[in-house]
Amino acid sequence: MSDFTFIPGGVTAAKGYSAAGDHLGIRKSRQRKDVALIVSEAPAAAAACYTQNLVMGAPLTVTKAHIADGCAQAIVCNSGNANTCNANGVEIAEGMSDLVQKYTGVKASNVIVASTGVIGQPMTLEPFTNGMEKLAALLAATPEGGAAAAEAIMTTDTIAKEVAVSFSLGGKICVLGGISKGSGMICPNMATMLCFLTTDAAVGAKVLQTALSAVVKDTFNMLSVDGDTSTNDMVCVLANGMAKNQPLEACEGADYEAFKAALFAVCERLCRMMAKDGEGATKLLTCEVSGADCEATAKTVAKSVIKSTLLKAAIFGADANWGRVLCAIGYSGAALDVSKVDVDFSSVKGVLPVCRSGAGIPFSEEAAKEILSEDEITVSVSLNAGCAAAKAWGCDLTYDYVKINGDYRT
Amino acid sequence: MSDFTFIPGGVTAAKGYSAAGDHLGIRKSRQRKDVALIVSEAPAAAAACYTQNLVMGAPLTVTKAHIADGCAQAIVCNSGNANTCNANGVEIAEGMSDLVQKYTGVKASNVIVASTGVIGQPMTLEPFTNGMEKLAALLAATPEGGAAAAEAIMTTDTIAKEVAVSFSLGGKICVLGGISKGSGMICPNMATMLCFLTTDAAVGAKVLQTALSAVVKDTFNMLSVDGDTSTNDMVCVLANGMAKNQPLEACEGADYEAFKAALFAVCERLCRMMAKDGEGATKLLTCEVSGADCEATAKTVAKSVIKSTLLKAAIFGADANWGRVLCAIGYSGAALDVSKVDVDFSSVKGVLPVCRSGAGIPFSEEAAKEILSEDEITVSVSLNAGCAAAKAWGCDLTYDYVKINGDYRT
Repeated sequence: MSDFTFIPGGVTAAKGYSAAGDHLGIRKSRQRKDVALIVSEAPAAAAACYTQNLVMGAPLTVTKAHIADGCAQAIVCNSGNANTCNANGVEIAEGMSDLVQKYTGVKASNVIVASTGVIGQPMTLEPFTNGMEKLAALLAATPEGGAAAAEAIMTTDTIAKEVAVSFSLGGKICVLGGISKGSGMICPNMATMLCFLTTDAAVGAKVLQTALSAVVKDTFNMLSVDGDTSTNDMVCVLANGMAKNQPLEACEGADYEAFKAALFAVCERLCRMMAKDGEGATKLLTCEVSGADCEATAKTVAKSVIKSTLLKAAIFGADANWGRVLCAIGYSGAALDVSKVDVDFSSVKGVLPVCRSGAGIPFSEEAAKEILSEDEITVSVSLNAGCAAAKAWGCDLTYDYVKINGDYRT
Repeated sequence: MSDFTFIPGGVTAAKGYSAAGDHLGIRKSRQRKDVALIVSEAPAAAAACYTQNLVMGAPLTVTKAHIADGCAQAIVCNSGNANTCNANGVEIAEGMSDLVQKYTGVKASNVIVASTGVIGQPMTLEPFTNGMEKLAALLAATPEGGAAAAEAIMTTDTIAKEVAVSFSLGGKICVLGGISKGSGMICPNMATMLCFLTTDAAVGAKVLQTALSAVVKDTFNMLSVDGDTSTNDMVCVLANGMAKNQPLEACEGADYEAFKAALFAVCERLCRMMAKDGEGATKLLTCEVSGADCEATAKTVAKSVIKSTLLKAAIFGADANWGRVLCAIGYSGAALDVSKVDVDFSSVKGVLPVCRSGAGIPFSEEAAKEILSEDEITVSVSLNAGCAAAKAWGCDLTYDYVKINGDYRT
């Protein structure tokens, strides 16, 4: 049904997008790129989802206003400072947009602005004033341009995150690619950490928003590194239409489904990359819930399991402490019959059934150690009460998470 | 108004209570006591609050039935195994009660049963069958008896937790004392970790339950070590009337208030002891919220702040990363105006204002380091929107939390 192929690259994989990333001086270390710029050749349909945190970063306020008309053409994003809880935050975000206009010609009101880093740290426009011309000159419609942008938005991430797929709409080959960052303060709620997606498909702004909202619900909103919902979460997508497909203007039909499948594939893969690269993480932890009476129950249970700090620490220690899975199911808030719950742990090394009908069953500690020592662990929970299912992604809790966050500002 | 004095001791501080703790063989290490027994000379009024986790330990099911009549006379509690998610859990908990009856004469239906330790670990009645006679012989109405019981209920706790106060009801001197345990899997919800309280005051069962429920709401329910609500949380209180005060039969008046104040004092102090002794913790973290529009808002905000793993790690590192406080306030779910929020950090070394009207203000990093290096840190949040206030207790997140929970079962 859904037919897409993963291809190399990220935000410059689709036609008509150039990108750049460089060190402009927001970070102290000259070795680290700190501003990314992404530009579409033509104005594009735009859609976004934002954090639900009441404390919302100034860049998000500005972005919301800029894409209220469903149109955008450029994205500028700095790392090293979240531009949040600063008295002059909106002024700086507008200033960043003005500088993009000055050096790229894209209208300031078509610029999406994002910032990530320390909250409440004083910030000035100076690095942008001094460096935007140089950054704009680096814009390139190449894999290298996209990779530089992916690198420039990293904070405590240890790897840059790029994904792209090609797919077909009405006989035309389209491409959708994206980059994301996110390592700590991750528990998106109706939105996500920073994720920038570009496609050359022609998609109307409303359809784009509907597809994005639907996909975010099942991908980024099912991701948690530490239960902390950031103030600056945002995922946005630009669709510039340069693939010349018949524009998608309805939220139904084969083409809409094909587009949504491609969008889901990119977002899910970025999600897994973010979870596996969670602050201090050594393992990707996936919880797959099946047999739920409804989707809400399945999601609530899956998220509760991957958020349990006790289970996360046990997974770090490769300890098959399944009682913590039952405990997290029990306090999730979902209504369910605990005496019907089955739990398995699994990895590439095999499947380990540990609980049937809410009670423990004997298992080999050796087999458990072998399975849980892998770097991708799945906890499968069957509620045996219906047909709904859900998946959530997280990571283990390690010494390094504490180390990274014990002294983040310096 | 409220007039009470802290005195030494715990569950044997009040008249007519004896206690014991010993190694019966649930734990492997012979060095560690693993069963506590507390007995009142006379049947006592009894009240309890329980975990809201859907997965509820078998001992709690049995206890609920035993004190449905508002009366109890003994408490038996083992550590080392939670007796939860075991097929024969209720049978074992009833068996423990029967053995208490056999060796102390207290009716099995007047026994409160509790267990704490690993969930879903097979368990047998054998250690109790073999050891209960010896344990009953150790019962003593002495500080040593109470201390042995406090020690026997410890799991990853590093210190035993005992508190007692004396107070006066209608001219009669009464005493209320308690012990508690709890170090990890702590985020009580309408209940708490294990806490056993005894008083010689004469208090009707209904009044006792009302007072306990009210106090638990503001003490144990405002405590979080790791956001994980255990399956076995319980706080219970026995009132045997041996102080011979005029029995308290109404939830109003000076005597009721005096009793509630004494109960609050004991519970609050146990709460602080539990937070400070949280798994791996090096610091007690208190969040005091004031100026809220209502109590619910104040509580929601206070709990969100002390639960943030990012803030907890920053406090471990003595890093004044107040943006994480704002972030936790923002995602708490409470409706409030972020632009009015003020935040201070403080300890015995002084007060450090860090945020006014939702924006950062300059502060000395040296002063911050000095204040945050203490072992009791308070985060004061003023919402400037009303008169309601609340307090919540937690602790820092450290390497040792990960270490303890990476391999808890072995």
